[in-house]
Amino acid sequence: MIKDLWLIGIGTGSPAHVTLEGMQALREAAIILLPLKGDDKQDLAALRYAILEAAGSDAEIRTFTYPERDPALPYGARVSAWHDEIARRWIAALGPETPPGPVALMVWGDPALYDSTLRIARRLTPCPRLRVVPGITAVQALTAAHAIPLNTVDGPIRVTTGRQLRSHGFPQDEETLVVMLDGACSFRDLDPAGLHIWWGAYLGSEAQLLRAGPLADTAADITATRAEARARHGWIMDTYLLRRSPA
Amino acid sequence: MIKDLWLIGIGTGSPAHVTLEGMQALREAAIILLPLKGDDKQDLAALRYAILEAAGSDAEIRTFTYPERDPALPYGARVSAWHDEIARRWIAALGPETPPGPVALMVWGDPALYDSTLRIARRLTPCPRLRVVPGITAVQALTAAHAIPLNTVDGPIRVTTGRQLRSHGFPQDEETLVVMLDGACSFRDLDPAGLHIWWGAYLGSEAQLLRAGPLADTAADITATRAEARARHGWIMDTYLLRRSPA
Repeated sequence: MIKDLWLIGIGTGSPAHVTLEGMQALREAAIILLPLKGDDKQDLAALRYAILEAAGSDAEIRTFTYPERDPALPYGARVSAWHDEIARRWIAALGPETPPGPVALMVWGDPALYDSTLRIARRLTPCPRLRVVPGITAVQALTAAHAIPLNTVDGPIRVTTGRQLRSHGFPQDEETLVVMLDGACSFRDLDPAGLHIWWGAYLGSEAQLLRAGPLADTAADITATRAEARARHGWIMDTYLLRRSPA
Repeated sequence: MIKDLWLIGIGTGSPAHVTLEGMQALREAAIILLPLKGDDKQDLAALRYAILEAAGSDAEIRTFTYPERDPALPYGARVSAWHDEIARRWIAALGPETPPGPVALMVWGDPALYDSTLRIARRLTPCPRLRVVPGITAVQALTAAHAIPLNTVDGPIRVTTGRQLRSHGFPQDEETLVVMLDGACSFRDLDPAGLHIWWGAYLGSEAQLLRAGPLADTAADITATRAEARARHGWIMDTYLLRRSPA
């Protein structure tokens, strides 16, 4: 039985992204639940260890592996079954004893943004006391790296996924669109007229890649750069911002 | 002439929100440009000093005051003239000598999100080398405090302002809406059917206030709580998330 479960946002690729609160929480945790592989990549596992060392945490590490998603299920059921199974694996990794203190998970980016850890945590019975430590998201790392504002003056922002962009396109009345979780360079399917893109991969890390420009002029370069970097690293995490010029 | 200008996101109300990168940047800055009053509140000025002390920064402090916005001008021109004047005040605060190292500004939240510092910086001629250090936004502090995800599974998010919400309402096809810069409790003007609200003020600080529930049941309580807290503190910063239940 987990009494206290802490979800600690660790930012996107640099131990320096972690907040003082995050560092303190890593020191105070009794056990860290660490994903070993599957969804997580080797470089990311190494980053988690580097952060724990920088924090001076002497928490006990318990590892778990991510299950495969079942491609036979429809999207919603597939995600739900996957979350159920991850919750079971956390419990299995912790074993039968009650943890001697808070159990913590190091969450890429921020635990609120396109991350399932909170949804998995809510599946535990009884539900532990949850604490969330916010972290720097890829959106912030992207705008910081390009030194651009996310919004125009008083302008709204839409954050969406590659999957949603493929289904719904870039609405005509939308000005600023951030796209996450897009493994398919879906910006290529948009009419590029009047669109500007700011793209970034491995944000915050030494491998960081940035591209920006009118979508018409940069889409091909981004697509090629992404494919080359992905092949070289064996994985990629990237995100981009699209802005429509005032007509 | 400013060679290097650093915009350092300091989060929303706790020195513990600052990242390791932010702390390091505060130590490496030669001069900190600090707003004294006007737009900034006394508690916030004190927080900035507390962060500088926690960072162990011995940067020289140069203060400036915010000008008044000219109510006679239309919105766009008013904001633009105000930014021009702030840029002039930065230059005046720095005086004629070239700064001996990077000049830094401590930006509430994250420099990319509903903040003008980047726009003001781009007015400087010649434009300094800009560095942005991301910070925890009120959006992240809100979802962390409530321990909720920002998005639904694969769902898009819209972030907007109170001003926009009053003009455009809550679009029927929208699921998740974050509202910032709303001094008028504009959620009261919405049809509350099917809407849930998570509200927070003074996020991250000891004075933090939270409310959550169906909008129909909580709007009055939030409005009263906000008015009382604002009167007591002399200022308030708050934000909220609205989510439409699946029909």
